[in-house]
Amino acid sequence: MKSWKDNLRKIEPYTPGEQSKAGGVIKLNANENPYPPSPAAAAAIKNFDAGALRLYPDAGGALLKNAIAEYYGVESKNVFIGNGSDDVIAVSFQALFSGDKPILFPDITYSFYPVWCSLFDIKYKTCPLDSNFRINLNDYRAENGGIIIPNPNAPTSLGEGREFIRQLMSFNKSSVVIIDEAYVDFGGMSSICLTREYENLLITGTFSKSRSLAGLRIGFAIGSETLISALEAVKNSYNSYTVDSIAMAAGAAAIKDDEYFKSTVKKITDVRKKTASQLQELGFKVLESQTNFLFATHSNADMKDYFNYLKTQKVFIRYFDLPRINNYVRITIGTEKDMCIFIEKTRQYLKNH
Amino acid sequence: MKSWKDNLRKIEPYTPGEQSKAGGVIKLNANENPYPPSPAAAAAIKNFDAGALRLYPDAGGALLKNAIAEYYGVESKNVFIGNGSDDVIAVSFQALFSGDKPILFPDITYSFYPVWCSLFDIKYKTCPLDSNFRINLNDYRAENGGIIIPNPNAPTSLGEGREFIRQLMSFNKSSVVIIDEAYVDFGGMSSICLTREYENLLITGTFSKSRSLAGLRIGFAIGSETLISALEAVKNSYNSYTVDSIAMAAGAAAIKDDEYFKSTVKKITDVRKKTASQLQELGFKVLESQTNFLFATHSNADMKDYFNYLKTQKVFIRYFDLPRINNYVRITIGTEKDMCIFIEKTRQYLKNH
Repeated sequence: MKSWKDNLRKIEPYTPGEQSKAGGVIKLNANENPYPPSPAAAAAIKNFDAGALRLYPDAGGALLKNAIAEYYGVESKNVFIGNGSDDVIAVSFQALFSGDKPILFPDITYSFYPVWCSLFDIKYKTCPLDSNFRINLNDYRAENGGIIIPNPNAPTSLGEGREFIRQLMSFNKSSVVIIDEAYVDFGGMSSICLTREYENLLITGTFSKSRSLAGLRIGFAIGSETLISALEAVKNSYNSYTVDSIAMAAGAAAIKDDEYFKSTVKKITDVRKKTASQLQELGFKVLESQTNFLFATHSNADMKDYFNYLKTQKVFIRYFDLPRINNYVRITIGTEKDMCIFIEKTRQYLKNH
Repeated sequence: MKSWKDNLRKIEPYTPGEQSKAGGVIKLNANENPYPPSPAAAAAIKNFDAGALRLYPDAGGALLKNAIAEYYGVESKNVFIGNGSDDVIAVSFQALFSGDKPILFPDITYSFYPVWCSLFDIKYKTCPLDSNFRINLNDYRAENGGIIIPNPNAPTSLGEGREFIRQLMSFNKSSVVIIDEAYVDFGGMSSICLTREYENLLITGTFSKSRSLAGLRIGFAIGSETLISALEAVKNSYNSYTVDSIAMAAGAAAIKDDEYFKSTVKKITDVRKKTASQLQELGFKVLESQTNFLFATHSNADMKDYFNYLKTQKVFIRYFDLPRINNYVRITIGTEKDMCIFIEKTRQYLKNH
């Protein structure tokens, strides 16, 4: 007899970055922000009327969409919101990449892209980064069912200018291009303004990194009404209410507090600069980061061993055992104090190995 | 030239129940709870350390899973959590109904089921309820790729006993059976205890109805480790963190406050009984509800017209323009005061039409 187990889906899931339950850990492995969210967001949570939670959230998400639209100078109908940018991008894959041709993305990039392709039966082809981990624009001239590129890219930390996106759009007219701007606020160049010119350009963003709200799960996309409507249709076929009422209130408060946002971003980019210099002095090669993390290697040290050593010292960074980058590490920028300890432990490692 | 629009997905989305932005509306159209969530949940939100939101939520969801497991007397590994039960059931469709044969569900039921089938390319066949809107068990003896039945069913409000589920399981051994228990706390009979006996039985539930947390989006499923692992694999291929940190804290606090839960459920079932009697006195036929809503019709009145009249009176109920039930209305049980006004407006309508 056929077993009920035959109807279960066989799928290799994405493995999220290691979380430690132990105390005293310096957590530089998930690109989280070392600073708390805006006090305005904290106040929005504290003052939230819990009684209102008996009602479903506003399925249209007006409060948060309006705040995002105002911040970016677009209209509310050009904004889509979701349960973190993972949800937003997953919906985008389903809604915008439903052609027959393979979609294109870099060989070294966010590791969720191939997982979504597998989940939604989307064909894909990866385009190799060059030897400096830069994107080769011409690779994307190939026929395709869609393109997704993170800008800045992860885990390389490298960003491209707006002219790059403009060129990409100029020759890619028969499919949708998604630029994943999860890290753009730390020194990258946003292409949100180009969504006015290119109806097939979608930009995705998140409140998890630069706005310190990873725990609340808020992602968004900005694009033409045609694209946003396609996203809404898929979202409303899956789950009408993906962003909860408290997340909407806190998110709207957070994006309005631009002063706090700018000050924390500046602290992170200042510490990044200092940390990069220190690593270089210790003989590391550090890529020119436009993100809240560094991607680095060392010609005289085994990065996997270094990563494991730091773990024993309660400093968690990220190592990817993947082709081409298996002697690199990704280091999230923490507080100045976190990074002092990190540099000290790194110095110790290099001395002893 | 091929247009980028050809790659967009064409899909007919689910339309959520109407929400009114106008004040003074009595909202009996979305099966929301008229009472606020437990004060313990409210306190968990107020006291939540907003600084912790800079970190991603616990992807394993231990806090909330443990609280649910303890409440239902199962183990944490038998619990799955998601962004509302819509998310939980959508993941279940993807994870558990991936065979070739059609899945089965009642012809009159939660209208999201066919939408998910369309989104995930799952074949389905509906089984007609009998003339009393009861499920005919024998219909589910057909070969199938899975079965989903809400118990109690919606919008009929009718529930089945545990023996019914046991019989269903006894002849359905080659596919997964999902029992959607969104409304079970209002007088239905839960089959959670049967998940120990039947490895292919999954029960889904929600904090949106009986626990007054629709605004926070918390759903769950309980089943064998095999089923839960299949759900986790799909969830981790979509979005690693679907339940945010505040929702987990508030949800765990809510489920521990059993006294408050029992008192609000009792208030609702008491008001339901009274409202059902009053409607019957006014000539309505009211189905024997085990939910927080009534499903009713009147032999001398047009229910669509009645529904529209109530709307003009700022009383929102739900009408479905669907075969077999297009002279019925679904009325959520509100507070005693809400229902007094509803009955008064109903009396007025019957007098004038």
